Amino acid sequence: MRRLPSLIGSIALTFAASTGVAAPDPAAPVTPTSILDASPAGDWTEIPPGDLLVIDLARGGRVVIALAGAFAPVHVANIRTLAQTRWYDGLAIERVQDNYVTQWGDPDGKKPLPPEVTQPAPAEYTRPAAGLDFTALPFPDPYAERVGVSGAFPVAMSGGEAWLTHCYGMVGVGRDLNPDTGTGAELYAVIGQPPRGLDRNIAVVGRVLDGMEHLAALPRGTADLGFYADPAQRAPILQVRLASDLAAADRPRFRVLRADSASYRAWIHVRANRQDSFFLRPAGAIDVCNAMPPVRPLAMVPVARRPGAPPHRG
Amino acid sequence: MRRLPSLIGSIALTFAASTGVAAPDPAAPVTPTSILDASPAGDWTEIPPGDLLVIDLARGGRVVIALAGAFAPVHVANIRTLAQTRWYDGLAIERVQDNYVTQWGDPDGKKPLPPEVTQPAPAEYTRPAAGLDFTALPFPDPYAERVGVSGAFPVAMSGGEAWLTHCYGMVGVGRDLNPDTGTGAELYAVIGQPPRGLDRNIAVVGRVLDGMEHLAALPRGTADLGFYADPAQRAPILQVRLASDLAAADRPRFRVLRADSASYRAWIHVRANRQDSFFLRPAGAIDVCNAMPPVRPLAMVPVARRPGAPPHRG
Repeated sequence: MRRLPSLIGSIALTFAASTGVAAPDPAAPVTPTSILDASPAGDWTEIPPGDLLVIDLARGGRVVIALAGAFAPVHVANIRTLAQTRWYDGLAIERVQDNYVTQWGDPDGKKPLPPEVTQPAPAEYTRPAAGLDFTALPFPDPYAERVGVSGAFPVAMSGGEAWLTHCYGMVGVGRDLNPDTGTGAELYAVIGQPPRGLDRNIAVVGRVLDGMEHLAALPRGTADLGFYADPAQRAPILQVRLASDLAAADRPRFRVLRADSASYRAWIHVRANRQDSFFLRPAGAIDVCNAMPPVRPLAMVPVARRPGAPPHRG
Repeated sequence: MRRLPSLIGSIALTFAASTGVAAPDPAAPVTPTSILDASPAGDWTEIPPGDLLVIDLARGGRVVIALAGAFAPVHVANIRTLAQTRWYDGLAIERVQDNYVTQWGDPDGKKPLPPEVTQPAPAEYTRPAAGLDFTALPFPDPYAERVGVSGAFPVAMSGGEAWLTHCYGMVGVGRDLNPDTGTGAELYAVIGQPPRGLDRNIAVVGRVLDGMEHLAALPRGTADLGFYADPAQRAPILQVRLASDLAAADRPRFRVLRADSASYRAWIHVRANRQDSFFLRPAGAIDVCNAMPPVRPLAMVPVARRPGAPPHRG
């Protein structure tokens, strides 16, 4: 059967090689996977459990999102508050628009927010480039002077400002028209062609690290903008918690490859210049959405908690 | 309820305004949709029915693909032969890998090909830039010297070569390792972050114009590379036909906005510089995958033939 090569994508995860450095086979081509498998543990950093938002869907499936507090601190604080007050529990995925977004929250917009939630939140659509932990990519971007990564996140910069870019799997805050900025009560994840035109117009607050298929494989909504026409079509949310608030046995743990590490530099180089036999013409470049630092689980989460989740790809 | 604006995406379709020029409201902001609604009929070109591949899935849903004969003529000729000999009928979607591709064809690779199929096909991964109907975009691309569009398709160019770019909804030919180029018997559509690193390494043969949700919303496969572990999970293909071989009442018809038209230029400008009230900071640019010329249906296809299809978005 004919196959495409495995794309070691922005949400590439594997349980392999989580315990140390593999001995490379000198005859084998260097691939993105072989670089990760051989990377020393010190090239990875654990994502703090307080920065992981864990969504358990009532019909099965867990989605884990890394929160980007360095870019949208007030919105992220609101999201933490909403999780810790169990405000999201019992709400639903209400919109799935093909080639655009999956959106969840309070479909009727009537559930009162806890008083600790800042509303309106400030327009955290960009932040100063100064002071940001940033690793630049050496390739052009249509939308910005420079692009690169910060922590686990894709970043663009122009004119002294930095912002998170809309890539497949990135998470933002739904909002109404100006000057409302949203609160974090309504979130979306990108499930299609990255809508980079939204960059700098909306608060981007995170990246889906695991379980993206539970958001992307849902039936598309048939009402305007992909909302579900029938409330029965909505996918109910069982609970949303910070990983730090889950019992240890149920707590997902992830580590991200440090962008200042030799392994990340090698990974980017090989992703941009594939050497494995399938590739005849290396691209010679990589775009910001394909350069998101790899993330791997640090500990296995009990399967019983994740009924809809397929195994991770390598 | 909080919403994101409707993204007039690369697969934006509408039944509205298919009959003429709308009278613009001078008080309303110019939007991508308003430009299309006001575009004269002469700015559109019908896609020849012999260039439309129509896939009807056994569980419901129709997928329409525009074939790119100017880029991969031998592979496209093979695909036409396979459709006309009904070779694809009864095969299945066998692989759905999140953030990568949905792939269909002969899961076991054992069904004999008709003798008219050229195998091996030549490596139609690029073509000469000279002689190509090409409209350039004025924005940089990480992977190529220039990007733009040709007919309904996204195109990159470097060093006198041109090629179709992997964007959400683009269709390519699965292949084994070099020097096998595939035949067209195994096809895939991009359902995630565009894997632009595949450009120039594989024959790209078309673009999904309609029904993308029937490929992108499928359950992800749990075996290696996203193949379905259990053959019962495969989505069977009822039939694959060229639109020109379907009865007139069942034949989808599409028109594409001509890239050399004033309407396309205005559409690109407004897509890159959104004026509607949601947008505070126009992007000032657009990438090649978001610049694919809009396509609209010319005639309604009977609903009974398309049981799983939601209405098109505007």
